Amino acid sequence: MASPVHIPDLIQKKRSGGEHSLEELRLLVQGFTDGSVPDYQVSAWLMAVFFRGMTARETADLTRVMAESGDQMDLTGLERTVDKHSTGGVGDKTSLILTPMLAALGLTVAKMSGRGLAHTGGTIDKLESIPGWTPELSEDAFLKQAREIGLALVGQSKDLAPADGKLYALRDVTATVDCLPLIASSIMSKKLASGAHTIVLDVKVGAGAFMKTLEDGRALARAMVDIGTHQGRQVRAVLTDMETPLGHLAGNALEVQEALETLRGKGPEDLTELCVTLAVEALAAYGENAGQAEARARQTLKDGSALAKFRAFIEAQGGDPAYVDDPGQFDIASGRAEITSRTAGFVQRIDALSVGRAVLALGGGREKKGEAIDHGVGVELLKKPGEPVQAGEAVMRLYHREGRGLEHAQELLNGGFTVNAQPVETPALILDRVN
Amino acid sequence: MASPVHIPDLIQKKRSGGEHSLEELRLLVQGFTDGSVPDYQVSAWLMAVFFRGMTARETADLTRVMAESGDQMDLTGLERTVDKHSTGGVGDKTSLILTPMLAALGLTVAKMSGRGLAHTGGTIDKLESIPGWTPELSEDAFLKQAREIGLALVGQSKDLAPADGKLYALRDVTATVDCLPLIASSIMSKKLASGAHTIVLDVKVGAGAFMKTLEDGRALARAMVDIGTHQGRQVRAVLTDMETPLGHLAGNALEVQEALETLRGKGPEDLTELCVTLAVEALAAYGENAGQAEARARQTLKDGSALAKFRAFIEAQGGDPAYVDDPGQFDIASGRAEITSRTAGFVQRIDALSVGRAVLALGGGREKKGEAIDHGVGVELLKKPGEPVQAGEAVMRLYHREGRGLEHAQELLNGGFTVNAQPVETPALILDRVN
Repeated sequence: MASPVHIPDLIQKKRSGGEHSLEELRLLVQGFTDGSVPDYQVSAWLMAVFFRGMTARETADLTRVMAESGDQMDLTGLERTVDKHSTGGVGDKTSLILTPMLAALGLTVAKMSGRGLAHTGGTIDKLESIPGWTPELSEDAFLKQAREIGLALVGQSKDLAPADGKLYALRDVTATVDCLPLIASSIMSKKLASGAHTIVLDVKVGAGAFMKTLEDGRALARAMVDIGTHQGRQVRAVLTDMETPLGHLAGNALEVQEALETLRGKGPEDLTELCVTLAVEALAAYGENAGQAEARARQTLKDGSALAKFRAFIEAQGGDPAYVDDPGQFDIASGRAEITSRTAGFVQRIDALSVGRAVLALGGGREKKGEAIDHGVGVELLKKPGEPVQAGEAVMRLYHREGRGLEHAQELLNGGFTVNAQPVETPALILDRVN
Repeated sequence: MASPVHIPDLIQKKRSGGEHSLEELRLLVQGFTDGSVPDYQVSAWLMAVFFRGMTARETADLTRVMAESGDQMDLTGLERTVDKHSTGGVGDKTSLILTPMLAALGLTVAKMSGRGLAHTGGTIDKLESIPGWTPELSEDAFLKQAREIGLALVGQSKDLAPADGKLYALRDVTATVDCLPLIASSIMSKKLASGAHTIVLDVKVGAGAFMKTLEDGRALARAMVDIGTHQGRQVRAVLTDMETPLGHLAGNALEVQEALETLRGKGPEDLTELCVTLAVEALAAYGENAGQAEARARQTLKDGSALAKFRAFIEAQGGDPAYVDDPGQFDIASGRAEITSRTAGFVQRIDALSVGRAVLALGGGREKKGEAIDHGVGVELLKKPGEPVQAGEAVMRLYHREGRGLEHAQELLNGGFTVNAQPVETPALILDRVN
């Protein structure tokens, strides 16, 4: 495929700090996707991007050509569409609660979700704890269900932004992962291709998240919001704390149980607040004022309307609604072990990364794509930061399957919390908003 | 080939400004050469090197592992070995004169040379103007001839620093050519592998050279000298002007004719001075004082000893010595055309790059490796910068083969010189020394 533009000239342009046109980015990304631009040129370009960065306009255009590299969902037949994305945390079952809340609020969630990898979980894995539930729907069934129930959730298609998958694999082996415009465009290319008008982003910050500092998190949020704005979408980001796992439970079925409790209005405060906050952002994108939006969002958890949407959604995708009605039916691993504090005081910190890794060690996550997981194992936080603890009192509980990975998980958790003699301030959950 | 070192970690180290160990560089370069490290990782690393640079120690170690990537000439059986390298210019027939001078001075030149590419000529091409002369010698014959005559010159082996060839090809397509430590290590890896104890470098600076400014030339010279010093060699660099072609003739056989004239003590002043200067540097590396060295060097051009060495060398490699004895025998293209000045004044500048490109246009060079060339075409400078010229007087003469490429060459040359109404200062030839 002879091309009038010489690829080394594009690399040199970025190397010298130049700004690419949409056409140049299309040439690079399309060429890389179809194999006409070799990976060794793209990796040199990626490293130049690492050093030189990209302007907001450039990042938006890169995201656009990545989104255009494969199938794009056409959601124009649906009303008030909204998508949600979290940058990944531990114990983060927010999507399970937020999406039926949004449906109950009159918005439409026609969403693609991912599976868990390493220490972070995935919504699809969590939902598969419910026997019969499937993430496989035809496009017609998906759109019909979204129209009728307001909520449909499928696994992410391989043909969604294939350039992103290929580019990410190359970044992974060329030390070019931690580059802001590339991270932002990777996330947003899939969101743009997924077709929703409004996108609510939950940018996690802290030990258990990819972004370790609030400053980095803000920059990522800003980059993602700017991409969406350039492409005519409504994007609103909330920065939230991920030093500590969200809620009390981590592990697939355990998290569904906690989500169901939250949908019944009896969930942990942090989780409930985060879901309400994100719902308010989604409604704000459609012009609703904050006070009314918050009242309406809380109401869906009190009046059972969000739970009803969740039940209908599970049933529509083949899941057994009995599990929604009676969460006690889940196959939770019967092994129990506790992590106790040696000293008395106040829990200062429970490290989200250690908890995530412990769930992984117990068999509740996967190291590599495609590995099977045990939905019934996990970790329960019996104490949250700020709470008092006695010497010898349990701080966490493990749910294990006949001791599998228990020793390693215990080691991780024993090193994963700190107790302070003096009372400690509990960290804020909502750190900032960017829109 | 499982390796304890993870290549992305090495890329990341350079990306963060770290300094590689010899072992790390060996892993990268050996892995790249044997194919176990993929080119997309090496190109990302090259771009990181472009931005972060390399320390002198690191550059020397990179050069060493590149030199060790293939065959290495063992010249330990030869006395007082010396190699010479020019970074490439136009009309640069220095090696043809300097190497027999060095042999006549009691040094041993067992040298590998290259062919010309684009606007720069190559010593092998020039020598092939002499019927019968061959750059192909067995290693034994090469060493024997060097021992007996003090001068042997062969084409560069493909197995000499193969990592350099492979790395250069990758740099060429990933916009990582113009990176000082990579340029220096590329040149020096071949010089190290060629085995000479002393290396004299002629770093060209100006319009007709790769290094356009004295500052860049100095930095390259410093980097190359440092590499040699770190690897236990004696390296001395001279920075010389390449705004204007060297001597009066450019083109293969024409340059051999001019070299023979110079070896007879009747060459142009700039060419003679450069050869003497480089010979003095070579002798200085063996401890000879500058005054005596210069006198001895000039003597070899006066007493015919350098010419005798050249004749013996040509004959030993199959060339017809009658061409050395009577340079009028060369097959010079019979077409002639002149480039005249429209105004009277003083020649200010004759652009070396334009002259080099004109020779190429006439068929005296090659655009791609492997192309055949016409040894008999070329350009003669009838005036050099500083000399007066009348309106309508010829400044250059073209030697063309039945008009081939003539129009293009004329166009290049008409735009390739300037005449000033006032007298102009002639630029210095020797700009600086680095050792």
